Amino acid sequence: MYDILTDGFGHDALRRIITEKNPSTIAIVTDSNVEPIARQKIDNLPELRHAPVCVLDPGEEHKTLESVERVERMLCDSGATRRSLVINIGGGMITDLGGFAAAIFKRGIDFINMPTSLLGAVDAAIGGKTAVNFMGLKNEIGAFRKPLRTIIRTADFASLPRGEMLSGYAEMIKTGYISGHELLDELMQARTLLADTALLAAPLRRCLDFKEEITRIDPEEHGIRAILNFGHTAGHAFESLMLERNAPVAHGVAVAHGILVALILSHFKLGLPSAEASRYASRLLNPLYAPLRINCTDYPRILALMGHDKKNATAGHSTFVLLKAIGKPELLPDVPQDDIKAALDIYRDLTMQ
Amino acid sequence: MYDILTDGFGHDALRRIITEKNPSTIAIVTDSNVEPIARQKIDNLPELRHAPVCVLDPGEEHKTLESVERVERMLCDSGATRRSLVINIGGGMITDLGGFAAAIFKRGIDFINMPTSLLGAVDAAIGGKTAVNFMGLKNEIGAFRKPLRTIIRTADFASLPRGEMLSGYAEMIKTGYISGHELLDELMQARTLLADTALLAAPLRRCLDFKEEITRIDPEEHGIRAILNFGHTAGHAFESLMLERNAPVAHGVAVAHGILVALILSHFKLGLPSAEASRYASRLLNPLYAPLRINCTDYPRILALMGHDKKNATAGHSTFVLLKAIGKPELLPDVPQDDIKAALDIYRDLTMQ
Repeated sequence: MYDILTDGFGHDALRRIITEKNPSTIAIVTDSNVEPIARQKIDNLPELRHAPVCVLDPGEEHKTLESVERVERMLCDSGATRRSLVINIGGGMITDLGGFAAAIFKRGIDFINMPTSLLGAVDAAIGGKTAVNFMGLKNEIGAFRKPLRTIIRTADFASLPRGEMLSGYAEMIKTGYISGHELLDELMQARTLLADTALLAAPLRRCLDFKEEITRIDPEEHGIRAILNFGHTAGHAFESLMLERNAPVAHGVAVAHGILVALILSHFKLGLPSAEASRYASRLLNPLYAPLRINCTDYPRILALMGHDKKNATAGHSTFVLLKAIGKPELLPDVPQDDIKAALDIYRDLTMQ
Repeated sequence: MYDILTDGFGHDALRRIITEKNPSTIAIVTDSNVEPIARQKIDNLPELRHAPVCVLDPGEEHKTLESVERVERMLCDSGATRRSLVINIGGGMITDLGGFAAAIFKRGIDFINMPTSLLGAVDAAIGGKTAVNFMGLKNEIGAFRKPLRTIIRTADFASLPRGEMLSGYAEMIKTGYISGHELLDELMQARTLLADTALLAAPLRRCLDFKEEITRIDPEEHGIRAILNFGHTAGHAFESLMLERNAPVAHGVAVAHGILVALILSHFKLGLPSAEASRYASRLLNPLYAPLRINCTDYPRILALMGHDKKNATAGHSTFVLLKAIGKPELLPDVPQDDIKAALDIYRDLTMQ
């Protein structure tokens, strides 16, 4: 349930959905960084002339229940009903937060996501996971609710800083590893694809189709959906560690590094050829992504952070998604700490940290 | 998915569910009014010895996002995971709020409801509607999520003030009107049933079975579930009006009065014999429930409050559930204001207000 547009501002796609749904009211959620892009999308669209716009402060630190309350207040004040529509325009923070606000307003109203970052498009804008952070924990409070539709305009990505593009690209690579050779080989041509956002449309469509199929089968992550967390067990730990060091990295950048750890563990535990980890490090991770400067004194904290990953059903153990082969993911619910430490050693070798 | 117990404290039922689910952690939500009853249920149960207890301030004014945050903090602090279990012990406020807190913690964890009031048992504890109030609006923020199980102990009702019992009884009567003669006729024996809570178990079971069937077919109120709102359009307006007058009445008491308005409108719009409204007023409403002292200067406010009822999909119109016959409810999406005013006139006559 998405459109990928390679030209125009998305007015036609938006108008079609609004006409079809005929909402009682419409409200818009965005943040101050993205507001100019949001204005392009909503200006000149008569259906949105009277729509209130909630402009949140940008960044993970504002992905909070307080920001959700601001959205709810706007919805109340503008007379929203169960038949109203919320349009979220922004990165993953806005689609996660605006989606959650819609999911709990009057026990759930429809929303449309218009992701403005590649990471948001590939990671957050479809699949129905909505959430905010709470007590320093990422996405601790949230709900499962799929958007009515997601409208992606690749030209919006052209203005993104390179780091933001790479962050989104890592989630595409992740999808390549769990879906199969065809997509992965396409994504190995990273320099070409990253040089022209229009070229991203085709592999992005493959990524979204794959994710839609997985989340259709298992919307609330009782089983197979967990494979979408490939690279995320170590990735989340790296992300939290860097935040604690006051040197935050983008989610996808942490995942790019987490993928390498997962590939090494896949060799240990499931016999994936070790050449796969080397190929990934030399062709994608090292040329594109800056090192995190992990050393062995960080291991205890990294292991502790893995125990806090809410996607791990069992507290105190680290669940990893690993590969038997490319496109053949498996869930390992209890990877021993010694294996993880050994994998981190090799990870540091391969990334020369 | 409920048990009605007429003896014991529910330990066996609780232990069975805990054994079956094998949760990673357990946490309890209650309020300071109910805490003594909660202690009876959890004391001497080794499975709950280490369970943290969140004791909220009682009453609708604390059914807020702030109270939800207190529950979420307890869950975080006690190391709750996606496999944890929340046990809500209290009236509708606690099961609504604790259920919502569970519904959004890590995008949803399991919870058990142990309603301690008749209203809570019949109205809130099954069916999966969870919510808190927001900006003065009832249940404005919430989610649909069914409890893993509901455990009702009728002896808990014995200590309730009579007003509380009557509040719950009104929701049972409501169920009688929409389900059919058999249950309704049983409920007409109000004095007998209200004198001995153990006698309530049988009609309560009928009410819950009916509600479970309706909410199984239509969990998120896209259609038939709306019939459970019989008596609630006027009932909610009365409830809000009395709150504005600083003379709050229990939810079910307001619904008891709302049922009479609905029966009168059912005669106007669907030809229900007018004797039904008279019978209800003389046999149940007037003998059991105090008058609200509505007069015609209240009509504009009552009509305005009906437009704010979130269960009405279309802002500015009043949707009523009315009866073609007993057990034959229909949804009328747009009842004209003149009909409502005329019904309020007759309502005042029949209740001698």
